[in-house]
Amino acid sequence: MSLTSHDALVALRRDLHRYPEPAWREFHTTSRIVDELERIGVDDLFIGREVLADGERMGVPDNEELAAWHERAREAGAREDVLAKTEGGYTGAVAVIEQGEGPTVALRVDIDALPQREADDDDHVPAREGFRSEVDGYMHACGHDAHTTIGLGILRRVKESDFQGTFKVLFQPAEEVVGGGKAMAESGHLDDVDHLLALHVGLDHPTGEVVAGIDGFLAVSHLHAEFTGHPGHAGARPEEGRNAVQAMAAAVQALYGIPRHSDGATRVNAGRVEGGTATNIIPESARIEAEVRGETTDLKEYMLERADEALAGAAATYGCEVDTHIVGDAPSATSDEKLVERVADVAGGVDGVDSIVRRDDLGGSEDATYLMQYVQDRGGRACYVGIGTSHPGGHHTATFDVDEPSIAIGIDTLAGVVERLSTDS
Amino acid sequence: MSLTSHDALVALRRDLHRYPEPAWREFHTTSRIVDELERIGVDDLFIGREVLADGERMGVPDNEELAAWHERAREAGAREDVLAKTEGGYTGAVAVIEQGEGPTVALRVDIDALPQREADDDDHVPAREGFRSEVDGYMHACGHDAHTTIGLGILRRVKESDFQGTFKVLFQPAEEVVGGGKAMAESGHLDDVDHLLALHVGLDHPTGEVVAGIDGFLAVSHLHAEFTGHPGHAGARPEEGRNAVQAMAAAVQALYGIPRHSDGATRVNAGRVEGGTATNIIPESARIEAEVRGETTDLKEYMLERADEALAGAAATYGCEVDTHIVGDAPSATSDEKLVERVADVAGGVDGVDSIVRRDDLGGSEDATYLMQYVQDRGGRACYVGIGTSHPGGHHTATFDVDEPSIAIGIDTLAGVVERLSTDS
Amino acid sequence: MSLTSHDALVALRRDLHRYPEPAWREFHTTSRIVDELERIGVDDLFIGREVLADGERMGVPDNEELAAWHERAREAGAREDVLAKTEGGYTGAVAVIEQGEGPTVALRVDIDALPQREADDDDHVPAREGFRSEVDGYMHACGHDAHTTIGLGILRRVKESDFQGTFKVLFQPAEEVVGGGKAMAESGHLDDVDHLLALHVGLDHPTGEVVAGIDGFLAVSHLHAEFTGHPGHAGARPEEGRNAVQAMAAAVQALYGIPRHSDGATRVNAGRVEGGTATNIIPESARIEAEVRGETTDLKEYMLERADEALAGAAATYGCEVDTHIVGDAPSATSDEKLVERVADVAGGVDGVDSIVRRDDLGGSEDATYLMQYVQDRGGRACYVGIGTSHPGGHHTATFDVDEPSIAIGIDTLAGVVERLSTDS
Amino acid sequence: MSLTSHDALVALRRDLHRYPEPAWREFHTTSRIVDELERIGVDDLFIGREVLADGERMGVPDNEELAAWHERAREAGAREDVLAKTEGGYTGAVAVIEQGEGPTVALRVDIDALPQREADDDDHVPAREGFRSEVDGYMHACGHDAHTTIGLGILRRVKESDFQGTFKVLFQPAEEVVGGGKAMAESGHLDDVDHLLALHVGLDHPTGEVVAGIDGFLAVSHLHAEFTGHPGHAGARPEEGRNAVQAMAAAVQALYGIPRHSDGATRVNAGRVEGGTATNIIPESARIEAEVRGETTDLKEYMLERADEALAGAAATYGCEVDTHIVGDAPSATSDEKLVERVADVAGGVDGVDSIVRRDDLGGSEDATYLMQYVQDRGGRACYVGIGTSHPGGHHTATFDVDEPSIAIGIDTLAGVVERLSTDS
Repeated sequence: MSLTSHDALVALRRDLHRYPEPAWREFHTTSRIVDELERIGVDDLFIGREVLADGERMGVPDNEELAAWHERAREAGAREDVLAKTEGGYTGAVAVIEQGEGPTVALRVDIDALPQREADDDDHVPAREGFRSEVDGYMHACGHDAHTTIGLGILRRVKESDFQGTFKVLFQPAEEVVGGGKAMAESGHLDDVDHLLALHVGLDHPTGEVVAGIDGFLAVSHLHAEFTGHPGHAGARPEEGRNAVQAMAAAVQALYGIPRHSDGATRVNAGRVEGGTATNIIPESARIEAEVRGETTDLKEYMLERADEALAGAAATYGCEVDTHIVGDAPSATSDEKLVERVADVAGGVDGVDSIVRRDDLGGSEDATYLMQYVQDRGGRACYVGIGTSHPGGHHTATFDVDEPSIAIGIDTLAGVVERLSTDS
Repeated sequence: MSLTSHDALVALRRDLHRYPEPAWREFHTTSRIVDELERIGVDDLFIGREVLADGERMGVPDNEELAAWHERAREAGAREDVLAKTEGGYTGAVAVIEQGEGPTVALRVDIDALPQREADDDDHVPAREGFRSEVDGYMHACGHDAHTTIGLGILRRVKESDFQGTFKVLFQPAEEVVGGGKAMAESGHLDDVDHLLALHVGLDHPTGEVVAGIDGFLAVSHLHAEFTGHPGHAGARPEEGRNAVQAMAAAVQALYGIPRHSDGATRVNAGRVEGGTATNIIPESARIEAEVRGETTDLKEYMLERADEALAGAAATYGCEVDTHIVGDAPSATSDEKLVERVADVAGGVDGVDSIVRRDDLGGSEDATYLMQYVQDRGGRACYVGIGTSHPGGHHTATFDVDEPSIAIGIDTLAGVVERLSTDS
Repeated sequence: MSLTSHDALVALRRDLHRYPEPAWREFHTTSRIVDELERIGVDDLFIGREVLADGERMGVPDNEELAAWHERAREAGAREDVLAKTEGGYTGAVAVIEQGEGPTVALRVDIDALPQREADDDDHVPAREGFRSEVDGYMHACGHDAHTTIGLGILRRVKESDFQGTFKVLFQPAEEVVGGGKAMAESGHLDDVDHLLALHVGLDHPTGEVVAGIDGFLAVSHLHAEFTGHPGHAGARPEEGRNAVQAMAAAVQALYGIPRHSDGATRVNAGRVEGGTATNIIPESARIEAEVRGETTDLKEYMLERADEALAGAAATYGCEVDTHIVGDAPSATSDEKLVERVADVAGGVDGVDSIVRRDDLGGSEDATYLMQYVQDRGGRACYVGIGTSHPGGHHTATFDVDEPSIAIGIDTLAGVVERLSTDS
Repeated sequence: MSLTSHDALVALRRDLHRYPEPAWREFHTTSRIVDELERIGVDDLFIGREVLADGERMGVPDNEELAAWHERAREAGAREDVLAKTEGGYTGAVAVIEQGEGPTVALRVDIDALPQREADDDDHVPAREGFRSEVDGYMHACGHDAHTTIGLGILRRVKESDFQGTFKVLFQPAEEVVGGGKAMAESGHLDDVDHLLALHVGLDHPTGEVVAGIDGFLAVSHLHAEFTGHPGHAGARPEEGRNAVQAMAAAVQALYGIPRHSDGATRVNAGRVEGGTATNIIPESARIEAEVRGETTDLKEYMLERADEALAGAAATYGCEVDTHIVGDAPSATSDEKLVERVADVAGGVDGVDSIVRRDDLGGSEDATYLMQYVQDRGGRACYVGIGTSHPGGHHTATFDVDEPSIAIGIDTLAGVVERLSTDS
């Protein structure tokens, strides 16, 4: 099967959709990508530890969890060579093609899925047409199955084109936990990159619309705070307890009470909390999984400092300890005007594109920004492109789906940009 | 096997220890009790729905959970007749022996275990001697295995004695969630009871010590509060969320802030809380599992009223709804002096008893109080007796254990009291 | 004394500076303004109730407070006719000159001072040069003394110019509590206005700089929330209290915890709180004086709705009542481009102006926005102009001062704009 | 005027009632006491610094406040010699009579009034009969005017009796703020005391009832916590503020959330709080005036430790500082059975006594406990006696009043006890 036809692309995307894997557990997905890369034929292929800077992964699950998914991927038919290279949660790949003298262009696509149960009624296309998630409780609810497919499609197209230079596709794991961007940015594979492209489907833009440059990425940090107190029998010895749930509750209130900042938008959310074991025991432990965001990286840092202070203070108020660590992180970023122009220009000639939005704000976070910033810091350019797709449900919901004609539009647009870049000054 | 020897009693207790079952899931335990009762030979035997008032069980798990334990009991060899009678979480039994004219005396023992993993090192006798819990994550960590054994031992002894009158033993489920007392109290089996005895081993009293009358039961209610708000993307649409975790945190603070009462001791604990799903979603739901207690039932009611107000107000503060329901409850109670005297008197002549404490406070809660109050309200008397046992770890901890010689002391003392009561005026 | 010379203007400003009066208590100030207006000679003069819409004043102090300042103004030599017209806190004036056919142009200046003690060391020019505030604890710390002077200076200049049309100057009270703008906007005096100008000195712009159009006014509401509970002796009867301080504390946390909004900047501040009477009494009452703001009026309304909910919920959580009322309010607004252009154009030719900033954001609130919105809603145009003044201390601090050469720049610029508007299409 | 007649005692009490002075400001009251003591004739008289241990006064107001009351007392006719000795808030006196060999007996009475406006309607006896408080906002609302009168009456009676030994009356200032007891206890005047008596009128006991021994004093500490943050403009620079009101609100919640203690009753109250200056300024400062209590001194210390932790933690949570100091304090205490018996015995023979309560609990706090503990620690005995008085309004309310016949009962009972003690073994 090659990826030259719409049918082949759709089949690949549906295949990926059927087997969603969350952050750092994309063992089967990486194997599937490597299969396609071998079919296309690339000049260089890096897998697992070869594409992730040492010690920079964030939000990695524990070994037991990793091992269970690794084994599940094996049972589902993943390749042993890829399983060996990705063991321990070192997922992802980088493919390189070299075609003479010219610039180095890179494309980043993200490959992970979400812990979200997929809708199963007939209104939902994947359910109706038989490619609904086969991994219960997990789903490609943000279109990374389409991203992966588009990345492979572009690679094939560029390889067959007159493109002169080096072209890399980075298949990045763990975007949903903003945990993979930093490790891939600092892996060395971006050191020589002149132009970096990234993309996202949907974002409330319909099929046929292209956003030439997306900005307004909120810098983000994900935090885990573990509170430890001392247990006590709630009836017989209430005074013996140092109550981790009281500390957590005070911390929740303090986090949401961090002052707004006059320099721009900030965000905070204690999205997941828990504590204690039984009604009659003073809770000894509690935890908060939170995030802070900022319109700029500085604003995010402001939120982070205040959050640290709030967590430490709240713990002390109730005689508890708190251990806070960052488990995910992404800076802010901006698309370079030069590339935005190029994307808009190329998209104008793509079949099926009927609307071009010059720039739009994401209003959320993305760790592609680590890669964009890395390239920009070294004098290169970066651009994040939106490929509209008419999606029935919102991103991250059970009824999200990709409108498949948008896959071809994504490939045509970005492959066109890559080719054009080789002939630019 | 009869229960006349120390060895037989120890063997039975260890058997029960090996198969701990938590509240309303005592399927195998009930079956095991029925086995023994048949061996002893009783005049009447009631099981399951026959010993629980309709609609009065509290804290019953959902059907899926009940079915899983029911099936597990079957696989472990529970009797089909008992399984049929206890299906749906109707556990427990009442055994009756009738020996001529005389008073009706009842003994209540509780039979459920706890969700606590048992210690597995050699310092822990059950581990060393091979009768550690075989149900992972559950444990007889409060001595109800000994209570059940003592109850059966007394029954056998009374049957063989000159006791004149009616003697009943109530094997009560779900004490640990204060969920079974009310249903058994109102089952009808107590309507004709003149004297009710209940007992507990340990409570920081060493082997050889007997507490003739325990008082100071704190009335208690267990509450579940479910907060419901509205989700929202924490980065893109924070204003759309109605944050159930904020509501829960405010409720935790309000609960612990309920004023003390000048009439006596009160307690409150939000012992188990959780909320939200992911760091980037404004939490749509959260829950608190709490308890309130009072030195008297009125004080507990005061705490309950204020807790309801606090939960409702906190939800409203953050635009959320809250659904609060009581899942366990027990009143306060006092041991009758007449019975306390009798116990002290009899214990003085029991082999192995070297210290008699007239009265002591429990400082905790127990739903035996429902049964005590029921009997006292109808003109009968009730007494809660402490049988010392030197326990290495505290109650409800992984290293709790019963010092087995205390089993005989418990039987000798309480069987003695039962016999004496038949000859009292 | 006329207002043609720099010295005369400076003398007037210093006179006003010496006698600062806060919101709705500008009795002496209004009298002083009327003196000058009579000297200049105006065609129409409205005072007190004649310039304020019925029932629309906000943040008016109580009668005792008003009477004390009224009497103090009398003692300081205020005119009896003005005192009669302003009694009860109806301060402010509107002056009108009519010079043939042409547009109706209005200028709004604010006249109130602040409850701020003025610096008294020699570094502070008013102290050194002998015109420091003579009303202890009050101060013109925001330059409204200069605004009033500039307003009078422009009126005189326009009267002597070739201006054709109607020109009104609105001397508005109670800007600092955002309490006077609405009443003056709806007084009828703006119904025929084609062009409205307003101004502010300073705002961190140095002398010689003019901001042609100020935007970014945050809409604001000032709230007072009074919590009422029930007292109780903290030692003897803690359970009898319904604690208004607990309710207030929970409300403070809920207010600061109102979620950010993705549509733009919001603000909240519980700037002044108090509660209770003595350490041994459960607090029966407490209060919060708070404000909410929004980048748009809608955003402010969002904050207001959530604040109401938070206050009501927090009171209910602790069995208290809360009475919330709005005591000050101002919408957002934008300067019209057409007028901004005109101001920039005229300022370019003014002596002493060396820098023109086209547009800048206020980042704070101002109830001139009520007047701007009123004119714009009826098809007119409005513009808020910044007149730079090098001020040593920040606005609202003890060492704020106006650099007096900026007074002439303000008059030249805005009088120039008024004259030009009469000849525009 | 001597104090032998009911009329004379009533006249003295009404005189004191007319001139209430609060803690450490009892200048006129001390002068009035010294007048009476000179009339009675005592062997030794100590005033001011002579009766207060250095550095042990608590809750002393600032110098300006002290000076104002000092001057007011002078204007009201206080003696210059007493004013000289009490300057700086060193109020109170100790009178001694020596009549041969025998035990040293001491009586402590408290002399201060409360910041409470007195009722002025005709239902209130002091208003109707013309001896209502002449110091607006202050009132003898706890009967210390009667205590002082009773103390003087007993002194006169003992002097004229056959009492053999030494008798001291300690007129203690600042009981209402639990600020004077420690300083007087450690002044040296108690070092040789064998028997200490103290008394209180009312406490919900009617005229004719005597409580022979009062116990159940809650140990108490009064705390002031001053929070300091950093101001900021709430609209323009919210991020610059470190919000002292947020810290205070979190501290209030943490204080009320201090866990109950299984050893006995505890109390906490944030009875007076305030913070901030204006709605548009992030609050830079805030304060809490709180108290903690315990059934024992240890329980009070437990509350104090947790309160300190809560205050410090809450400040840190919001980047603020907190300065906490104790401004009043009293331990717990118990009346000695030997003295209780004696009081009960003597009261049985007193005219007008129709009911004797052996022991009752105060349920509140009193710094007489410092003196009781001091004497008991040195081998002496102490007893706190209740003299019933039918009071229309509750203690500390505007309509509290003493039923004057109870004054004679108090004198007869306690003078009788003093006399009897000289003849006891």
